[in-house]
Amino acid sequence: MAANRQRSERSPLLNRETLLSYFPQSQRVYVCGTNPGVRVPFREVRQEATRLADGGRESNPNVRFYDTSGPYTDPAVPLEPGKGLPAIRLPWIEARGDSEPYFGRAAQPIDDGYLSWNHKEKAEKRNGASGGALSLPLSRQPRRAKRDAVTQLAYARRGIVTPEMEFVAIRENLGREDRVPERSDREALSFQLPGAPLGARIPERITPEFVRDEIAAGRAILPANINHPESEPMILGRNFRVKINANIGNSAIGSSVEEEVEKLVWAILWGADTVMDLSTGKDIHRIREWILRSSPVPIGTVPIYQALEKVGGRPEELSWEVYRDTLIEQAEQGVDYFTIHAGVLLRYVPLTARRRCGIVSRGGSILAKWCLAHHEENFLYTHFEEICSILRAYDVSISLGDGLRPGAIADANDEAQLAELRTLGELTQIAWKHDVQVMIEGPGHIPLQLIQENMDLELRHCWEAPFYTLGPLTTDVAPGYDHITSAIGAALIGWQGCAMLCYVTPKEHLGLPAREDVRAGVVAYKIAAHAADLAKGFPGVQEWDNALSKARFEFRWNDQFALSLDPTMARSLHDEALPQEAAKSA
Amino acid sequence: MAANRQRSERSPLLNRETLLSYFPQSQRVYVCGTNPGVRVPFREVRQEATRLADGGRESNPNVRFYDTSGPYTDPAVPLEPGKGLPAIRLPWIEARGDSEPYFGRAAQPIDDGYLSWNHKEKAEKRNGASGGALSLPLSRQPRRAKRDAVTQLAYARRGIVTPEMEFVAIRENLGREDRVPERSDREALSFQLPGAPLGARIPERITPEFVRDEIAAGRAILPANINHPESEPMILGRNFRVKINANIGNSAIGSSVEEEVEKLVWAILWGADTVMDLSTGKDIHRIREWILRSSPVPIGTVPIYQALEKVGGRPEELSWEVYRDTLIEQAEQGVDYFTIHAGVLLRYVPLTARRRCGIVSRGGSILAKWCLAHHEENFLYTHFEEICSILRAYDVSISLGDGLRPGAIADANDEAQLAELRTLGELTQIAWKHDVQVMIEGPGHIPLQLIQENMDLELRHCWEAPFYTLGPLTTDVAPGYDHITSAIGAALIGWQGCAMLCYVTPKEHLGLPAREDVRAGVVAYKIAAHAADLAKGFPGVQEWDNALSKARFEFRWNDQFALSLDPTMARSLHDEALPQEAAKSA
Repeated sequence: MAANRQRSERSPLLNRETLLSYFPQSQRVYVCGTNPGVRVPFREVRQEATRLADGGRESNPNVRFYDTSGPYTDPAVPLEPGKGLPAIRLPWIEARGDSEPYFGRAAQPIDDGYLSWNHKEKAEKRNGASGGALSLPLSRQPRRAKRDAVTQLAYARRGIVTPEMEFVAIRENLGREDRVPERSDREALSFQLPGAPLGARIPERITPEFVRDEIAAGRAILPANINHPESEPMILGRNFRVKINANIGNSAIGSSVEEEVEKLVWAILWGADTVMDLSTGKDIHRIREWILRSSPVPIGTVPIYQALEKVGGRPEELSWEVYRDTLIEQAEQGVDYFTIHAGVLLRYVPLTARRRCGIVSRGGSILAKWCLAHHEENFLYTHFEEICSILRAYDVSISLGDGLRPGAIADANDEAQLAELRTLGELTQIAWKHDVQVMIEGPGHIPLQLIQENMDLELRHCWEAPFYTLGPLTTDVAPGYDHITSAIGAALIGWQGCAMLCYVTPKEHLGLPAREDVRAGVVAYKIAAHAADLAKGFPGVQEWDNALSKARFEFRWNDQFALSLDPTMARSLHDEALPQEAAKSA
Repeated sequence: MAANRQRSERSPLLNRETLLSYFPQSQRVYVCGTNPGVRVPFREVRQEATRLADGGRESNPNVRFYDTSGPYTDPAVPLEPGKGLPAIRLPWIEARGDSEPYFGRAAQPIDDGYLSWNHKEKAEKRNGASGGALSLPLSRQPRRAKRDAVTQLAYARRGIVTPEMEFVAIRENLGREDRVPERSDREALSFQLPGAPLGARIPERITPEFVRDEIAAGRAILPANINHPESEPMILGRNFRVKINANIGNSAIGSSVEEEVEKLVWAILWGADTVMDLSTGKDIHRIREWILRSSPVPIGTVPIYQALEKVGGRPEELSWEVYRDTLIEQAEQGVDYFTIHAGVLLRYVPLTARRRCGIVSRGGSILAKWCLAHHEENFLYTHFEEICSILRAYDVSISLGDGLRPGAIADANDEAQLAELRTLGELTQIAWKHDVQVMIEGPGHIPLQLIQENMDLELRHCWEAPFYTLGPLTTDVAPGYDHITSAIGAALIGWQGCAMLCYVTPKEHLGLPAREDVRAGVVAYKIAAHAADLAKGFPGVQEWDNALSKARFEFRWNDQFALSLDPTMARSLHDEALPQEAAKSA
């Protein structure tokens, strides 16, 4: 009990007042689309008036932000973590009539890492856990496709504009119709310097049809499992805003369900566009259930992690059957994308032998061990068609894992890495054949001069499927600051066309991230993504810089804070010098 | 007294034990040159042995680091802040026989911001200051040229290799003769990926003759005032290691002499290659004297700041005479480079009227006000030949200030900025005519896609003189994190050829940096500079990454910490997860 109290004192996060306090002068607003139920959320920041030289005042418009924080920052939606979020997409999914609820896979004690129901029950009593996943009030019956693929890719290829597509079009435009940037008047709020899109083809305005066409071409994905109807649609692709992912997850020495949900909310509060749950150890089914029911952003996982738990942590005992079972289990829960390391081929493993740091991807390492133990080809590769045939029934997107990514500058762009990338291209075509959405994971540790080659080869070998990189870290020498070593690489590859940047926290290489590490990582990556959007010339993104600089120039300190990526940090650093409230207004 | 004690408790920095504690397993070593007195300092980190699979052990070599911390980290040199550092360059300067001590400019109360000696004395008694600059035991008689320029540029043009040039050659090579990188064996400590030098021409090994030739060509400068003999020579240029500068300085609401010296030591401990003293307000002569006598790195200033103090803070009252007097005052003290905003021309000022943020450079703003008040051309421009004729007598380098640099993304690369840059090119030629070393200051706030244009135009208009940029910040939206928004731009422009990166701290736009802000800024910029060196392919720089990654791969945690850019941070973040000492060895 003492430990519980301590935790809740330390973490008063799931509290509306606390959440709202981080973003002052803000309110959540919605722009409606033409499809019923399409209500696209934004955050709007109110500003003070400008004091003119003649003593008059000139009002400043609200500034609108892309908002990932979901209903947590909407006072109109009750905050009941135990109940889950509203299932906003359910009517759209039902209306399509191509999926149906069914009696899903029977839950098993091993899903949470227990040998029997008895073990599970005892452990839960011991830990004071409030029932297993089965008894969660959150659970609903899973859905799956009746026959054809229920993926956004399948719809796009048939020429259909789904409500999800309309949602992301409005979202990318910040809900505005007029998106033509001003090119000459540097004082205008809508002024924008010309971008250098480096091959991206970004229209002045994102239309639902453009979204559809980009998905149909495989250049973008809209991760949206039909069993995660709580998610607010978002899109990943070179011709859209650059997105960021935050990893959370417990571990053997880990944290509780509540803490993981708090980390989720914390990450999306600061701006994570998707969240990966990398939990291992006990209770991962239950943790995932809570995360999904609580998440307005797409959730990704690495199913091999749970499969490994089910075979007692021994990679050589993994089998297609256990893995397949895990895919279904997680697809039914609503995971939006799976990292699948199907490109780690048996013949590539020896290529890593003379590396500086061997194989650093956990998934890559597990599969390399399996391949060597059995001297057989990676079962994810040999069963890839079956994987696709499962995922298409739920619209789980595939994130093709780079199990052989370099873990040191010395290993950058080596043959192991590039051989795997070519195989990922081959797998991309198979996924597309099954109407499964796919993106490609990328490294890792790459010095600045070799980043462009990564982007170029990915576009070429993987047919312009969206790229999703970890950093990259541009040097190995600064543990404790890898959010910075990697934000440098992330900004560059984001500019070059990478669709999503997986964050790296200051704790990378040192330990599991705590809350402040998550914040530092998300903020560093929001900086990288926004710098990349500016560089690409995505229409309208410079308005944020312009509004903040105007507030700065006019000494409207409160506005400068409110418009900041992290208002609380900006204000607190300013307060160290000048704490008086009177110093904050113009 | 209470305040004093509090300060010394807060700041036990000038203490050998404290200083050494930040860099474990380290010792300062020297490599001697052929010129007498050329003893080039490095830091060497000892490593544990690697445990081999067969139970044996394989020793790991010491790893050598470029070291800016000066005698502060050498236990063989007594730490007596009141006495100043050893004047290691004095014998070289004397041996050249082209300069002589003289009775310098008479000190005046106004130098420290006082109207009379009486005022000054009273204030010092009130503050408990230990005597004015005049009574400092540190003071020595200033030197100046007998007749010809005593600049490293003048020597280089005459074909002379000075001891300073030999010093920097050894320093850039880390004191090693064998600098040929390994290109195929990724496991080798000397393995290095090919760089993309983007026009830089970096030899496999830096020779003293190469240093001389680069200085003679104006492509590099070696800032080394003959009145700052305590400095350890270093070089700035596109074909050398990328350097970083840290700004310190008191202000009206400011800090004491001791605090500024502590900030200096703190900045060079983390790796600042030069330090700019931007003090304003009272006591700036005295603070500068202490900083110079305590600094093993070149010190830069912006003399117009002190000149403005001398005229009561009223820009329109500035005159060439006051400014000239300040130049001599500071040159005699030993300042190594002056930022001179001679490119802010009267006709450029109106170009800033329709900017988002007008003129944000303090120097630029002062001179713009002067120009408008007098409706005359900038007196730094009209007297530029005279400025050069003064500086050549001391070897003060010129850093041509970018007074019209953009202060917002919206103002990047605008006509005001680029017009000034062209004028800086014209002034570069004048400086060179007088054998004065010169570098060019650059922005500022620049989005990623416009950074290359800055570098290209600087090289073209300013004849490849070294570029020295503030960041650039790649977005305006993250006050509180501008060390990150700008490290991204700094890494990129460093790669593209910028010689020195002026750091930005998290407090930029919010207040004066405290000690932890200085550390955060320096570390972020060391990351940017090292990432740039890797990208350019500077020979040998990847060894650091390789050694650290090997330690990481072998779970030699103590070595991983010791090899880190910030060992203390790496260890403390790791300790949050696993505090046991036993967990730190392989």
